[in-house]
Parts: sequence; C-alpha cells; structure tokens
Amino acid sequence: MKQVVGFGDFILRLSPPGYLRFMQASSFDINYTGAEANVLVSLSMMGVDTQFVTRLPDGDVSQAALSTLKKHGVGVSNVAFGGERMGVFYLEKGASQRPSKIVYDRKFTSIAEARYEDFDWDNIFSGAGYFHITGITPALSHTMPDVCIRACEEANRRGIIVTCDLNYRKNMWTPDEAKSVMERIVPLVHTLIANEEDADKVLGIRSEGTDVVSGVINREGYIDVARQICELYGTEQVAVTLRKSLSASDNDWGAMLYTKGKAYFSRTYQVRIVDRVGGGDSFAAGLIYALGHDFDPQHAVEYAAAASCLKQTMEMDFNLSTPEEIERLVAGDGSGRVRR
Amino acid sequence: MKQVVGFGDFILRLSPPGYLRFMQASSFDINYTGAEANVLVSLSMMGVDTQFVTRLPDGDVSQAALSTLKKHGVGVSNVAFGGERMGVFYLEKGASQRPSKIVYDRKFTSIAEARYEDFDWDNIFSGAGYFHITGITPALSHTMPDVCIRACEEANRRGIIVTCDLNYRKNMWTPDEAKSVMERIVPLVHTLIANEEDADKVLGIRSEGTDVVSGVINREGYIDVARQICELYGTEQVAVTLRKSLSASDNDWGAMLYTKGKAYFSRTYQVRIVDRVGGGDSFAAGLIYALGHDFDPQHAVEYAAAASCLKQTMEMDFNLSTPEEIERLVAGDGSGRVRR
Amino acid sequence: MKQVVGFGDFILRLSPPGYLRFMQASSFDINYTGAEANVLVSLSMMGVDTQFVTRLPDGDVSQAALSTLKKHGVGVSNVAFGGERMGVFYLEKGASQRPSKIVYDRKFTSIAEARYEDFDWDNIFSGAGYFHITGITPALSHTMPDVCIRACEEANRRGIIVTCDLNYRKNMWTPDEAKSVMERIVPLVHTLIANEEDADKVLGIRSEGTDVVSGVINREGYIDVARQICELYGTEQVAVTLRKSLSASDNDWGAMLYTKGKAYFSRTYQVRIVDRVGGGDSFAAGLIYALGHDFDPQHAVEYAAAASCLKQTMEMDFNLSTPEEIERLVAGDGSGRVRR
Amino acid sequence: MKQVVGFGDFILRLSPPGYLRFMQASSFDINYTGAEANVLVSLSMMGVDTQFVTRLPDGDVSQAALSTLKKHGVGVSNVAFGGERMGVFYLEKGASQRPSKIVYDRKFTSIAEARYEDFDWDNIFSGAGYFHITGITPALSHTMPDVCIRACEEANRRGIIVTCDLNYRKNMWTPDEAKSVMERIVPLVHTLIANEEDADKVLGIRSEGTDVVSGVINREGYIDVARQICELYGTEQVAVTLRKSLSASDNDWGAMLYTKGKAYFSRTYQVRIVDRVGGGDSFAAGLIYALGHDFDPQHAVEYAAAASCLKQTMEMDFNLSTPEEIERLVAGDGSGRVRR
Amino acid sequence: MKQVVGFGDFILRLSPPGYLRFMQASSFDINYTGAEANVLVSLSMMGVDTQFVTRLPDGDVSQAALSTLKKHGVGVSNVAFGGERMGVFYLEKGASQRPSKIVYDRKFTSIAEARYEDFDWDNIFSGAGYFHITGITPALSHTMPDVCIRACEEANRRGIIVTCDLNYRKNMWTPDEAKSVMERIVPLVHTLIANEEDADKVLGIRSEGTDVVSGVINREGYIDVARQICELYGTEQVAVTLRKSLSASDNDWGAMLYTKGKAYFSRTYQVRIVDRVGGGDSFAAGLIYALGHDFDPQHAVEYAAAASCLKQTMEMDFNLSTPEEIERLVAGDGSGRVRR
Amino acid sequence: MKQVVGFGDFILRLSPPGYLRFMQASSFDINYTGAEANVLVSLSMMGVDTQFVTRLPDGDVSQAALSTLKKHGVGVSNVAFGGERMGVFYLEKGASQRPSKIVYDRKFTSIAEARYEDFDWDNIFSGAGYFHITGITPALSHTMPDVCIRACEEANRRGIIVTCDLNYRKNMWTPDEAKSVMERIVPLVHTLIANEEDADKVLGIRSEGTDVVSGVINREGYIDVARQICELYGTEQVAVTLRKSLSASDNDWGAMLYTKGKAYFSRTYQVRIVDRVGGGDSFAAGLIYALGHDFDPQHAVEYAAAASCLKQTMEMDFNLSTPEEIERLVAGDGSGRVRR
Repeated sequence: MKQVVGFGDFILRLSPPGYLRFMQASSFDINYTGAEANVLVSLSMMGVDTQFVTRLPDGDVSQAALSTLKKHGVGVSNVAFGGERMGVFYLEKGASQRPSKIVYDRKFTSIAEARYEDFDWDNIFSGAGYFHITGITPALSHTMPDVCIRACEEANRRGIIVTCDLNYRKNMWTPDEAKSVMERIVPLVHTLIANEEDADKVLGIRSEGTDVVSGVINREGYIDVARQICELYGTEQVAVTLRKSLSASDNDWGAMLYTKGKAYFSRTYQVRIVDRVGGGDSFAAGLIYALGHDFDPQHAVEYAAAASCLKQTMEMDFNLSTPEEIERLVAGDGSGRVRR
Repeated sequence: MKQVVGFGDFILRLSPPGYLRFMQASSFDINYTGAEANVLVSLSMMGVDTQFVTRLPDGDVSQAALSTLKKHGVGVSNVAFGGERMGVFYLEKGASQRPSKIVYDRKFTSIAEARYEDFDWDNIFSGAGYFHITGITPALSHTMPDVCIRACEEANRRGIIVTCDLNYRKNMWTPDEAKSVMERIVPLVHTLIANEEDADKVLGIRSEGTDVVSGVINREGYIDVARQICELYGTEQVAVTLRKSLSASDNDWGAMLYTKGKAYFSRTYQVRIVDRVGGGDSFAAGLIYALGHDFDPQHAVEYAAAASCLKQTMEMDFNLSTPEEIERLVAGDGSGRVRR
Repeated sequence: MKQVVGFGDFILRLSPPGYLRFMQASSFDINYTGAEANVLVSLSMMGVDTQFVTRLPDGDVSQAALSTLKKHGVGVSNVAFGGERMGVFYLEKGASQRPSKIVYDRKFTSIAEARYEDFDWDNIFSGAGYFHITGITPALSHTMPDVCIRACEEANRRGIIVTCDLNYRKNMWTPDEAKSVMERIVPLVHTLIANEEDADKVLGIRSEGTDVVSGVINREGYIDVARQICELYGTEQVAVTLRKSLSASDNDWGAMLYTKGKAYFSRTYQVRIVDRVGGGDSFAAGLIYALGHDFDPQHAVEYAAAASCLKQTMEMDFNLSTPEEIERLVAGDGSGRVRR
Repeated sequence: MKQVVGFGDFILRLSPPGYLRFMQASSFDINYTGAEANVLVSLSMMGVDTQFVTRLPDGDVSQAALSTLKKHGVGVSNVAFGGERMGVFYLEKGASQRPSKIVYDRKFTSIAEARYEDFDWDNIFSGAGYFHITGITPALSHTMPDVCIRACEEANRRGIIVTCDLNYRKNMWTPDEAKSVMERIVPLVHTLIANEEDADKVLGIRSEGTDVVSGVINREGYIDVARQICELYGTEQVAVTLRKSLSASDNDWGAMLYTKGKAYFSRTYQVRIVDRVGGGDSFAAGLIYALGHDFDPQHAVEYAAAASCLKQTMEMDFNLSTPEEIERLVAGDGSGRVRR
Repeated sequence: MKQVVGFGDFILRLSPPGYLRFMQASSFDINYTGAEANVLVSLSMMGVDTQFVTRLPDGDVSQAALSTLKKHGVGVSNVAFGGERMGVFYLEKGASQRPSKIVYDRKFTSIAEARYEDFDWDNIFSGAGYFHITGITPALSHTMPDVCIRACEEANRRGIIVTCDLNYRKNMWTPDEAKSVMERIVPLVHTLIANEEDADKVLGIRSEGTDVVSGVINREGYIDVARQICELYGTEQVAVTLRKSLSASDNDWGAMLYTKGKAYFSRTYQVRIVDRVGGGDSFAAGLIYALGHDFDPQHAVEYAAAASCLKQTMEMDFNLSTPEEIERLVAGDGSGRVRR
Repeated sequence: MKQVVGFGDFILRLSPPGYLRFMQASSFDINYTGAEANVLVSLSMMGVDTQFVTRLPDGDVSQAALSTLKKHGVGVSNVAFGGERMGVFYLEKGASQRPSKIVYDRKFTSIAEARYEDFDWDNIFSGAGYFHITGITPALSHTMPDVCIRACEEANRRGIIVTCDLNYRKNMWTPDEAKSVMERIVPLVHTLIANEEDADKVLGIRSEGTDVVSGVINREGYIDVARQICELYGTEQVAVTLRKSLSASDNDWGAMLYTKGKAYFSRTYQVRIVDRVGGGDSFAAGLIYALGHDFDPQHAVEYAAAASCLKQTMEMDFNLSTPEEIERLVAGDGSGRVRR
C-alpha cells in the first residue's frame, strides 16, 4: 500500500516504573509518543511505508525522540525544527480501582506555535496515499486548526485519503471549541474513528443508553451515532472503539465499523491490561492497514480490534505487532500459549 | 481536625523486587514502615496534622527512615533516640496460590527497650486530638504494655480520643499474653478496629461460621462480635475489615462499622492486589479521618473501605490517596479509566 | 530417597524484563536452565540428593551457569567440558492474548556434539536411584539418541529407575524423528510424563475430543491415551499435565496420574501466571519425589500438581518450593494469605 | 541561627542513568532541583531552619517535587500555586573529555509568570534572618527582576541579611541584560558569591590572567575582582569558587573569601567527580552556615569549600553532608577510609 | 560525501551491568554490535549516508538487532536473511588491574556460512563511495575470505574506495591464516588501519621497541611499520591507533596517520575509560569522515583520535558523537565543563 | 591442599546502589558476607575444598544467605541453626574525599549467643587441614572468646594449622577487651594477619612513624612490629597489609610477609577502588593458598597482594579471582587490556 503520512505532536511521556505513584518514583520510564506517531509506528511494524511530520526544537533530546521513530522505520525527513520546547506529560499507571493519572505539560510547544508554511507540504505529500491526523493536533493551539484544515484540504486536492481519530481531550479544549473546528475537518475525512465519548463531546452526537463510567455499552446506540455522522458529514466509514473499563487492570475491548449503511462488530476481548495507552492509535493503524489492503468490513474491524487488543498487552504506547501476530489472534488463537 | 498522634514501632521492610523469592533477590526494595506510622502518613496525605512517636537508635539509617515520614508531612520532633537497633522484616510478595512470606527480625529494638520516661508525653500530647496505637506496640516487649497503658490513660485524662487497631501478630505473643494486656487497653479506646481474626485471638470473642482460610465470612457473626465488644468494654464504635483472600493476587475487601447498636457495611471491592500490606492501616486512617470530620456511619465505613481498597493498588505500605481520590471511589467510580 | 541423576542440555535463557518485547529491551534477565536441570533444582529444594550431567564449553560463562545449580545444591562434579558452545534461547514473556515467544539458538552446542564416552557413566550412576531425561535431550542432535538410549539401558541394568518427560519440541525434530527415537526409549522408562500434545506428536497416540488451542480437555480421552501407552510399552505409570490456557496471564492447571489400570486426577488450579516456563519440569520433580517417598497415587498427583502450580507463581524456570509449602497447598490453603 | 529563606525556581532535572547519552536512555533519573532550594536542603541537613518560596502549578507532580524538600526538612508552607508549568531540564552526565550537556526547557513556568503579589512576603519574612537568591531567579522572565529587587529591598528593610550567588546562565539572558538587573540587586546584598566566570559576565569585572577553558586560575586576579566588587557595591564579603576542570571526571576545587580588605583561600581538593551539579549551591550553603555561626573568615571558606567538595562526591544536586562530616574534612581527613 | 557501505558480522554483546563479573550477574546489558556496523553508526551520527550489509537468521531477535542500526540512521535494506544463528559474545568489564574478559560464541553464524551470491552486490554498491571491512569478516569462516576478496575487487572495479581495519582476533584465526588472507585484501585497500599489535600479527611487520603489555610505544617504530606497509602493498595511507593501557580504567590514547611518506601524530588523550570497546571502530569512522571531507592529514588524524577518545567516554560500542562535539575536542576543549 | 575450615559470623550487608547515600536509596544491594566466609569463597574459587561454620536462625533468609556460599562451592553442612537473628550492617559507599560509612546492627545474633556445644567440632575438623578465624568472631559477644579459644585449641590438638586475621573493630570491643582475648588466641596461631592498625590496637604493638589517616607508612616500623609478634607469641609468620588511602576512590595497596626473621614486601598497586570491603579477607585467602601450595615467601606475599588487589576491582565482598588471573597479575600484567 502507499505511504501513510501522519501529522501531529510528538511528546515525552514520563512514567514512574510499574505501579509506583509520582511521589514514590526516583526515575521515570521514557516514552516518546504522539497519537499520530503511534499510528505510524504500528503501520511501519506491519510493513507499511510511513512518514511523520511534526515540529520540534533543535537539540539532542529532540534527536533522541526522533531516533525512536527511526528505529521502527518511520520516516522523519520532513520534520521541521524550531520553536521553544517539546511537550511533556506525566503518566502514573493505575491498577484495579485506582485510575491512571496524566499531568499534561504540553503548552508552548514547537508544533503548537507552528504555521502552515513551516512545513514543506509539497514534499510531504509527494508519495503519500493516506494522511492521518487526530483531534489532538488542532487542539494544540489557536493556530493549529488552520494548519490542519489546510493540510487536509491539500490532501483531498491530491486524492490522498484522509483518516482521522476524533480523540477528544477535555483539558486541551472545550466541546464547543472542538466542535467548531472538527466540523470543518470531518467533511474532509474518509475514515473517522472515535471512542465511546468522542462523538458526543466533539460532534454533539450521542448514543442513548451508554454510561461510560459504569461501563454499559449500547450497541444500537453506536450504530445510530455512526449513521448520523455518515449522513451529516458524508463520511465513508466510521469506526467506534468499545472499551468497557471494569477496572484499571481489566478491560473489555472491541469495536464497530459502520460503512455503507451497515455495522460490523468485532469480537470482544477480555484484556488483562499491561498498558492501555495507545490502544486507540493501534486500532486506527489496523483500520488504515485494512483500508490499504482492501479487507472486507468484517475482516477490517476484526483486524483493527485484534491489533489494538495486542497493543494493550505491551508496555509503552507503540504497538509492535506484526500482521502475522494480529491475524493469528483474528483467527481465534488468544490462548497465549508459548510460541517456540 | 486536631492533630493525630501515633505511637509505635518503625522498622525496615526489605522486599525482593516484584515476585522474586528471597533466594532469587540481589537487591531488596526499601520500605520504612510501622502500623501506626502508616496510619499517620495516610492521614497526612489527607491533609491532617500528624505526629509520630517512636524510639530509634541514633544514626544515619534512622535519619533515612524518618526522612520518609517527613517527606509525607508527618511530624517527628518527639521521636526519642537511644537503644541498640531498628527492627527489620523481610517480606517476599506472593502471587496466585503462593502466599506472601514475612521473616521478622524485630526483637531487641530501641522501642522494645523503651520506658515511659523516654518520651516527653506532655509535649507529645500538647496539641493532640487523637491518639492511635495498635496491638503491635504492647507486643514488642515485656515493658511495652505498661508504656502503652499509661500513654492511653494519659490521653484519656486529657480528653484525647484513643483509637486502636487490635492487629494481632501470632509470632510476637500468644493469645493469652495478648488478652491479658489488651483487656486493659481496650476499655480506654474510643474506636476499635479489628480484622477477621483479631477479636477471636486477642479478646476471645469469635464470630460463628467464619473460616479465615476458606474465605467464608459471616456477616451476622461479625455484628455479634462487635456488639459483644461494645458491651464488654464500653467501646463507642467497632470496625471490622472483611478480607476474602481468593489468592495472593485477588482479594475481596470491605468493612463493617458498628456503632450505637447498629451495623453499617461498606460495599465490597474485588481488588487486584498490588501490595496488600498496609491495607488495615489505611482503613484505620480513613476511619479516624471520618471521625474527625463527623461523617455519618455509612459514609465513614465507605470512606475507610475505599481508602484501604486504593492502598492495596499501590506499592509499599503507605496509602498515598487524597480525599478527592477516595471520595471518587466512594461515589462509585472504580472503573479505573485514565484521569487526564 | 536415593540420588536422582539428570542428563540433558543446560542453556542460557535470555528474557526482556517484565512484559517488554525483544525490540524494547535494553537488558536481558539471565536464567540458566534446562528441562532436566530444572527437575533437579526442584528436587534439591525438597531435600533430595541430586546430580546433573551435561557437557559445556570450558570457560567463565559455563562456570557462572553451573554456579546457579550449585547454589541450589545440585551436584555438578560429573559435568563434562569441551565442545564449542552453550545453547541460548530468547524468551519474550506474553500477557493476556499475546503469547510468549521463544527464539532458539541451541544448535552446535557442546552437548549436542557429545558422545557416550564423554561421560563417566560408572561414576555418574554409582550412587543413583533415579535417572531422569526428557525428550529434549535426544532431539539435540543426530548422535544424542544413541547416547540417551545407552544411558537408559545402563540405568536399567543397574536397577536405577528411569523417568522421562516426553517434552516434544517441534522446532527441534519432526514427529517422525521423535517417534523413531522415543519408541526405543519409552520401553526403558518406569514413569512417563507428557503434556496435552506430547503423546500425540511423539507416540502418535491421541486423546479424542481435545483441542489444545481452544483449551477443551477431555478427561476420558487422556485416560485412554495413558492406558494405550502402558499397554504398548509396559510403562508403570503415566502422568499427564493438563493445562487450559485461557490466556498468557491465566491458566487452569491440573494433572492425571494413571497407574495399575486406574486414573487419578488432581484438583484444578486457576493460576495467575507469573512465569509458566518450567511448569512441566516442576511437575516431574514432584512426581519423582512422590515416587521416592511412596506416596499413594492420589497424593502423588496432588503433590506434583501443587508443586507445579506454585512454580508458575514464581519468576524464572526453577521451582523453589519446599515440601512444607507444597503440602500446605495440597491440604487446601491456596488463599495466598500472608505467612508471618 | 535564624531561619534562611530562599526564593527561586524549582524544576525537574531528568538525567539518563550513569554515563548514558540521551539517545541511549530508556529512563531518566529524577531530581527536583533549583539553585536556592539546593542551598536550603544543604542548610537543613546542617540543622538550620529553612523555608523555600517558589511558584508551581497545582497538581500531583508539583506535590511530588515539594515532598523531596519536605523530606529534608525544608519548609514549603509559603509556596504559591498557579500558572502553567514546572520547568524541566535534561542533563547528560559527561566523563573524561566528554562534557556534561544540559538542554533547558524552563520557559513559561509558573514562577516566571509570577508577580510580587503572588507571594505573602509578610508571612515569608516573619521569622527569617537570611534571604538567599541567585542570579537565575531574575533571569527567569522579564517580570522577575522586579520581584527579586522588591523582595531584597523588603528584606533589607527588615534587617534580614541578603546573600546572592551571581550564577550567570548564558542561555537565559545576555551579559547586558544580566548587568542591568544585577547592578540593582548587588547593592542590596551582604554576601556575594561567584564562580570564575560570573563576575566578568554579569558585572563586567574580570580577573586578568584567567582562562576558564584551559583551567588556569590567577589568584591575584581574583583578589582584585573581589576588591572591585566590594568597593563598587559596598558588599561585605565576596566569595569566589575556584574550579579547575581537568576533565569531566576530575576537578580541582577550592574557594576564596574576601572580606574587610583581605583574601582567604581554602585548601584545594582534587575531586573525583560523582556529580558536580550543585557544587556552587552547597558552597553558598556552607558560607551562610559559617555566617550564622560567626566562623572566622579562614574557617568559613574552609567549611564552605569542604562542604562543596563533599557535594561533588554525591549523586544528584543536594548536599547531604552534616556539619560533623564537613568539619572532619576541614580538619584534614580526606583519606576516604571506611567509617564504621 | 558519498555513501559508506560496511560489510561484516553483527552480533549480540552481553555484558553484566557495571563492574559485575559473569558469576554475579542476574541480567546482561544488550549491545548489538559489529566492527563495521559500529563504524557506520558513528558515520551516520556525523551525518553521512551509510548502509550495512550482513546476513542474519530470520526472526524477532534479528529484527531487534537491526532496529538499533535503523535508530541511528544506518540503512539495512540489503541485509540477507537465512542461516542458523546470530553470534553472541559475553563481555565482562574490567577495572583497574582487572582486565575486561570476552567469551566468544560466534561460530556457525548466518554470515559465517554466507556465500558471495547471498548478497545483491549490484544493488549494494549502486550508490556507494566507500566500502569498509575489517579483518574480522574474513576470519569468520573458511568461506568468508573469498567473499571479502571478491567484494573488495568489485568495489575497486567500480571505483569505490576500500578502507580496512586489520583488527586481528587471535581466537578466530592464527597469524598464518590471517596473513595468507589479508595479504590478498590489503593490496585492494586505500586506507589501512591497525592497532599496536595488528601489523605484527597479521602482516608480520613489527615496530621495534614496542611492548604492548608494558605499554611502551615507540613512535619511530610505528612510522617504520607504516612505511613498510605502504611500500609492500601500495597503500595510500596507513593509520595506527596508539593505546597505552595503564590499567582497565585509565588509558592513554592517540594515533598516527602515515601518508605520502610522512607521519602525522595526534595529540595524546588521558582517557578515564567508560567503555573502551569500539574505540578502534570510531577511529576508523573518523578517518573515513576525514577522507570524505578532504581534511589535511594532521586534521584527519586529530579528528579521528578525538572521535575515538570520546567514544571511550560512552557506554556501549557505538560512538554517538557529532562532528561539532568532535571538533570542539580537536580545538582543545577537553576540560569536560558542563555545556548548557 | 587439605580442606580449610572457617568459623565466624555471616551477616547481611545492605548497600545503596552505586554512590547513593542512605537517605537517597530506594533499594539496597544484597551481600551476605563475613570475614571468614569471604576467605573461604576466595579459596573455593581457587579450587580449594572449604567448609564454613556459623550459627543462623532457621528460616528462608538464612537459606538464601547460605545459598550464596553454596553457589561458590563452600560447604555448609555443619552450620548450626537456632537463636534469634542474623546480623545486618548498612554500608554506604564513599567516593573521593567522602568516606564509606558502616552502620552496624550485629548484636543479639544467633552466633553471638552460641556455645561451644552448639557445633559438632568432631565432624567439623574431621577432614580439615586449616582453621581460619578472625578477631571479629571473639568480639561478637562475651561467650564467643571461649568458643574461639577452645576451637583453636582443638585444632592445634589435631595438628590443624590455625590462621588468624586480627581484624580489630572498634565499635565491637575496646582495645583492652580485644587484647585480653587475642593474647590467648595468638599463641595458638600459625599465620597471623593484620592491617596497619590492628597490631597496635589489639596487641599494643605499634610501628613508629606510621600515621594511618595521613597515609604515611613506615616499612621499617612494620618489620619491627612483625618481629615483636613472632618473638612474643611464637608465630610462624606474620603478614601485614599496607593500605595507603589516598581517597575513597584511590588506594595504594601492598603487603609484607615476615617469616623466619626476614621480611618480604610485595609490589605496590595503585588501585582504582570498585569496592574495597573484603580486601583483607582476600589477602588472607591468598596467603592460606600460598601456605597450602608451599609458595616461597616472596611468591606468597605477591600472590596474596595480587589477589586482594583484584578483589578491590570487583563489586561486593567476595574475591572471584582464579589462580590463573592472580598469577597473571603477579607476573606483571596489570595493564587491564581486554582478554578475549
């Protein structure tokens, strides 16, 4: 399949080891991450040509960050340098009834201050078949919505398929702010991805009968939400990840793909969580891979759900699964028996 | 609320990392701990003024130990120095069917050899509203029962509320020894805390139909035990923690509070254990906090149970939960979803 | 009981820490291991006199490897030195739906190139009562079947009881190769051990109605398999370990012992897996211990099953349980409560 | 001696373990630090009452940061909360010919955006005898010079002794900017501290014959510089730390104290560097301690030099030496023999 | 400068952490390495386009190994897959009088069994300007000399400059074997690199008056050796690294470059060793960089010596220095002062 | 040579990792150690048959401790079990001018409370040729001098050679106490070992002109001391280790052996210290090895000095050097060059 380009933030996640709380940690595990970069790493592990576009300050730590993408084969030749800082967030991993906690420090970053002209879009898009962004990128600053919209428009103009994960972050913008921007982006998007909360918070479209905290998920409601999105914005396909959070240690995980008026549900996985961050990103990667390989809708949603199930059994934000590993789970082998 | 003073041992817990057994370890994780100190740290994290009284040998390791209390805001200005040693215990963390193992080395310690006069009780009690001890302190040596009894009497004399966790330790004294001492302390206690075994072992009061090993817990039996205690010793309220140990990895956890002739049960939590040590101490802290804030009995037992549920999802013996975190679980959010 | 001699490979297991994947690791945990050596360490922890025979290259790393056996009391005075290398395998620990992965590098090793004459069998067998091998040893090279068969014959000649775990490894030889060799070894064996797959793969004897991947286990089928083995090869007793792999994190575990025409099933344990490698080896050790202590068949299979249940709650391949710990689980205490 | 108040930034230092470079690190060691906070920790370890004033965002990471000060006894009750972020810097430790490298990310911090009114100066200064700042604090933003100057004036008004370490940071401001601000602060200072570069860069006063890179230090030149400062600004005493950097692993270290027209040089230490960051801060602490204990000038400079020599033999930025340890080195025992 | 292609082994170095001996280690630090790969990583860090050619078994560990090269920007698209295994060596780091120890396990590897046809030389050489090998590659097996000679001949034919580091390994082949092969390779080489022992062991050319163990190095002797090599084999330039090993912790390090009848000596560095492995490789990289940038001979040898001095202040085999860092040391700043 | 029996304490050393201070540590490195046990491990690594006698409490931690001796081949079958506790000491490693610090907690231990009858001396001495104790063992309690004296007498009676390291510990007993006991032991000793301080503190024999703190060592004085000891107590040979502590990081190290009226000095090593604890023990081991192999006095002192030089380049208290490694250093190769 053709190259997938991702555009977004790239930041440093700092986590106390294991289940230590912030106050107990004498070191932080390092994880350079970003919603779009995570998607690209996952695709690159699947053998897809990928390229990541971001903006970082010049310096050794930025180079260290980018080297983790290069390690997994993601192209970084169009990364822009400049600005003041790389974002940071602190993540304390939860367990059982104790939730994970995130403390953000992602303001004033190089990419938040970027303008459209800071990037060489002509070069960026020259070999691309897909362009992936998430709702985090336009939320980074007041100037980023414009950059994102123009980039999506340019992608559309060139016949590049745009995929987008709504990824609403309540501490980055309000639902109203999100809606005013995302309503302009969604019409440019071919494949839209959301989790249980996003459609409601970002587009004001809600699935009746769902209560995120209590974990009740209403299948009919999600179909209804997806149908509304497709009708309102002309979206080709809408995917919804369905997480039932029993506790910080155990989640049920599955997904629905809605396309051409029909909904396809994946099987549901009972996941013993190793690290749930990046679950949605790996789902997006699976879906883009399915798109690029013309999987039928049922296979597509199963592939993406299995990919993201596996991600959550790994440490850190990257999904390092190969297509062979994912297809084995799709085929039903979730027994976890040793592979020699 | 007024200052809470705790009096007891402060010792070094040495644990192999993760699930390693003693024989496999090349390092020990450090955890300076003590039943009463744990209660104070938990209270201090809840914003309560606290002060810990113990006796330690003079030296760098004692200072390192005390610095962990200072770190969490517990006052240590009345700690006495002298004697030969600080106690040590070795803890190997169990998993699944394999139990945790503790090897004690807590004899001949500075506090075990302390006399009542080693402490400046006038200064200690000058600002106190609550005095907390556990059944471990009088078990430390033959001289400690006297110190504890006199301290409780002094607290009573000054109108300071005494709280006590029975905390029976079978390798420290026999039930007979425990009974002869605790029968003199319990009448001085306002709020008494026990786990499933303590009332039977220490006071000879047993709840019919309970089998600790098999995990069967008889609610009616516990109410009966609490009623007997209140009647016998004039205790204001008796709390019982209810642990059903399915395995070293999974416990059910809840509690009952009995006061003014009525029993209040908390909800039961299915806890994926991170570190269960300190669970009872954090419950006591929760209960003392509830007492100091005039929570109604149902709220009190729910708050204390939620606090101690959260403790068991953290590494080490300290409960680092804030009231906000505890109340969120009391309010029903145990889904463990990421908090950004 | 008399000394147990084990003969087989001894190799270096390299594992990324925790749940890291190969690509994420900057260090490997070290675990010198081997199916027969694991059995001996387990027996030695139970107080049995043991001796391990293998062949290793001369050098510091071999000495480091052997020191881990000496640490647990296993005799190594008849280890032969020479040849080119010690084997290595890389093990990535799975979690939930993600299976553990093993990459082997165990060709061309010192033992694979060994001849019968490289070992001083007279000395080796001088004090032995039991001789233990597994199906891995003859699979090491084209010359090893001969060494194993001659060693078993010599053991039989001396009245030493031979025990054997079929332990089929599909990446070491084909079922046909295995069958042609093991059919000559099994008649020399007193106690034969197999897991759910081995009898089928190695001896072509299959239990109807069992599907390893889906985890369905058919008790009647296993009895039938064991009966066939006893009839065909004159085996005294056949034990089968029964693993139901719900996921890489959760397994059901039990076993059957068939002897004198009758089958004995152990209770089934729901194991929260810490490290499942070495589970079968610790079962074999438990069974040999039972044999040496004349346990009745029900006690024997319960003891071996409990021993191997406990192994899987420990890190690394060695079972470090004592008979006291095992018997406590046999007696029903799997509650995992803290032992002080 | 009376309480020492420090005012300045408090930031997170992130360092790869050992001698790893940024690109090699998979974790960062955590070190919450700040020039003024380091001085206070050192003084608190010497038994001095201390209080730190800064401004931090509200949240768990700030609480973790402050807990490290509380651990060492530094008072934090007047810390202001608000603003966007806590600063971060990345430190890669050098060795031999390879220099340590620092990447700063300390803009837009809560304290950089603070105003004079954000702090309760009346409360802050109520028990203080000394007020310590460094040249880093006014360099944090365009608004901070005013806050610093007003705080120093207020301290002067109250008869609180002001001490100041010039601490020039070239990536925070230019010499011109520094000079325009520091020329207003220095006249308010009782004891001024500088390293080999500061006087030149900040005040434009240079000691002839000194070449920082080559490590040549000219004693006469330094006396001349100190004399000029005293004359120009009416400073009571000027201390200069004298570092001869032979390599990142080996430094010569000593100091000069100039007061009442006379210069006092400490002995020179050949330091095998463990962590040189915080060396200057621990020198300042030693000097303030000497000031508060009326040491004669020779003793004062020896004490401060010995304190800071010891700091550089410890990991992280805090000097954890006690007066007893420091005086032993002052007395000449630098043999490093084991103290039992 | 044009692309540099390297051809050789790529193996796993396993080292106990810090100064632990093999017997003390419970984990090994991972370092995928190879003499030629190390050169390429160093060049890639300097901004040079590089490509590594080797042969590895197909599998996850090989992918993990290659990802470390990709991380630093080295191209791996022409790596061949097949064969049995990747080599391993165990390295115990020495200190002071205790030498580092290496235990090799590098036989039977995929590359040792490779044939010339396993590689797509046309593709490999399509963009290359330089081809680098070392004396290790032909020493890998009896078939490798032929592969190396043919590759060098092909490089010569295409006008690609061949560089070679003699790198004699006494446990891989005898001096006689080495000589018979290297005498055929050296005439194809433009730039030859050797350490104090290589010329003697491999080419039988010795510098009088040098005693490697005692550390005496005779400058005139080295010039003589280099002159002989140039005359005998028509080599353009010969570089000799000059290591005086005072102990495992302290080395003097410098180099000589001989070209066009004249010898150029670098300055000598007193290196406090962090990890000396890879020192020679980083020197070769520096020299190739100098060649590609037309440095004059004095600058070339200073640049290469400074680069390799810096390497030895870093952990692991890769030199992660940038040209800016190297030139700063060339310019004389070895003071190790912090760079902010 | 014949078996060497050692008798003494076996305790747990707890050290913060690297150069961390007690207050900074969140884990302790584990090192089960004892002066006599260290000697035996060193001898066992040299191929000598050894047996260690001590008394420990029954339990898992004692078994873990003993397993570290078994790992290195030291026999432990005569260890007595009983009593209350195993000793502990805390060791903070110094650097440069900062000394290492030890906090002892070794009172009330199982061995301190042992009586002569607790050990099966007949069995212990049945195969022994050498009996080694140090001055630490009789210092453990008021009952231990008697046990030690009787054991030495019994050894003398059986013709077993007694070796003794004075090893004065000032926090265990006073010089007067030590003298009154050691004066009864020394006459039973064949080979006596002391460091620079011991002869003075324990026997009241002093070498003029030596100042331990300043590091001045007077060779003639030491000869004089040794001569006096031999004359007074009839000792066969007296060895003195000569440490010049330049700092905690750098020591000069050598030794003198005085026998038959003549003194033999080893060469002096400049040691870059990794861990100096156990240096004296490894010297004793070297000397006993020399005794058992009839080395001439010069070879004996060189061997013992080289052995103990190497020890100090290793982590932890055990010397893991082989005779081959030691003889290589004796032969003059201290260059630390990599051994492949």
